[in-house]
Amino acid sequence: MPYELHYWPSIQGRGEFVRLALEYAGVAYVDHARGGEAEALAAIERTEGAVPMPSFAPPVLRAGDLWIGQTANILLFLGVRHGLAPATEGGRLWTNQLQLTIADLVTEVHDTHHPIASGLYYEEQRDEAIRRAADFRDRRLPKFGAYFDRVLARNTAGDRHLVGADTTYADLSLFQVLSGLRYAFPQAAARTEASHPRLTALHDRIAAEPRIAAYLASDRRIPFNQDGIFRRYPELDG
Amino acid sequence: MPYELHYWPSIQGRGEFVRLALEYAGVAYVDHARGGEAEALAAIERTEGAVPMPSFAPPVLRAGDLWIGQTANILLFLGVRHGLAPATEGGRLWTNQLQLTIADLVTEVHDTHHPIASGLYYEEQRDEAIRRAADFRDRRLPKFGAYFDRVLARNTAGDRHLVGADTTYADLSLFQVLSGLRYAFPQAAARTEASHPRLTALHDRIAAEPRIAAYLASDRRIPFNQDGIFRRYPELDG
Repeated sequence: MPYELHYWPSIQGRGEFVRLALEYAGVAYVDHARGGEAEALAAIERTEGAVPMPSFAPPVLRAGDLWIGQTANILLFLGVRHGLAPATEGGRLWTNQLQLTIADLVTEVHDTHHPIASGLYYEEQRDEAIRRAADFRDRRLPKFGAYFDRVLARNTAGDRHLVGADTTYADLSLFQVLSGLRYAFPQAAARTEASHPRLTALHDRIAAEPRIAAYLASDRRIPFNQDGIFRRYPELDG
Repeated sequence: MPYELHYWPSIQGRGEFVRLALEYAGVAYVDHARGGEAEALAAIERTEGAVPMPSFAPPVLRAGDLWIGQTANILLFLGVRHGLAPATEGGRLWTNQLQLTIADLVTEVHDTHHPIASGLYYEEQRDEAIRRAADFRDRRLPKFGAYFDRVLARNTAGDRHLVGADTTYADLSLFQVLSGLRYAFPQAAARTEASHPRLTALHDRIAAEPRIAAYLASDRRIPFNQDGIFRRYPELDG
């Protein structure tokens, strides 16, 4: 039975981190988000409802009897199963740690346009968003950028990978975040990458991986848009 | 060599989830936060600096050669080592999923008093905090409360534990969150618990566990205060 991915239709969102891992590993999966809005929403409802392990929110990956929620947790599972993380305990924990730090960054990106309430429209929290986004650009993004650059620089196996000498799901996720930042904050992202060319090199290396390149060129890759985590509001960049 | 915990002095913060797991397991550890502010800050600097696996932020647990950052990742490690999570793959992932959902709730609690920037004082973002806290009390906390209640109710081994029939680190962490909510949002927390008595039962069960009771009564337990994640600003409750 192939994996089943449960996620919102029409946005990349957090589901995209799971898709990139599945695509890179060349694993078959059913993506309920692609069966139309009604199927996608019904699939999500199943993950919250009458299953033994209900999830708080998508993405949720079904793997046989397991209903696995929380993006980093799904990737932890896929990393072990499909060689997307080291086999050692230390290597697995380190990859998970990096993924959780990426998840924190993703939450902060989301909150630049929704600092007050995810249930309100952007326009209802635009003033607060402008304040929060300025702090994100000036303090948080530089801190995260310097951090991931340091991790690359410290890697004794070389600065082309976050962990060891092989591509892990953390590399794929950092690629996704850098892509999203380029879309949402073109000016701030350009400054971050100019300060840390290793980040650009990682982004470009992943984009050129044959299976990732094929995925990005396919219609399975939903374009960035104004409903996802990474949104382009010119007043939030600068 | 005992574990070494690296965390900020004088607050419970995210370090407290690690302390509760270590105390419940009865494991020896050196808590650098308790050696005075200078030692605590110097210890944190070591975790960010010249180690092979630098962390973005504390808490960091050193376990021999491993420098493990990110709260949920530390608990994943301790869960395996000290029987604080099931031994099966599915059980470990499920416990990790619940911990990550608790982590999301903790971030939302933090952002009720710091919705704009963690580097600014509360007073500089008080108006925004009042808006965000109202959404937290009215929409987010009820959703999280109902979720964890549902997880307890669904547990085929009984509704006294989140996972299986034994205490896991997820139980300890949910206890900590409920304690913090009682401190920070006494009115909203009381409503949540009144709607979901299973949450109160879990809180009280953990508080009465002998090692946890001894820890809570000791001077190793830093009291809740206005510098931590859970802060009591009456204008944010209601």
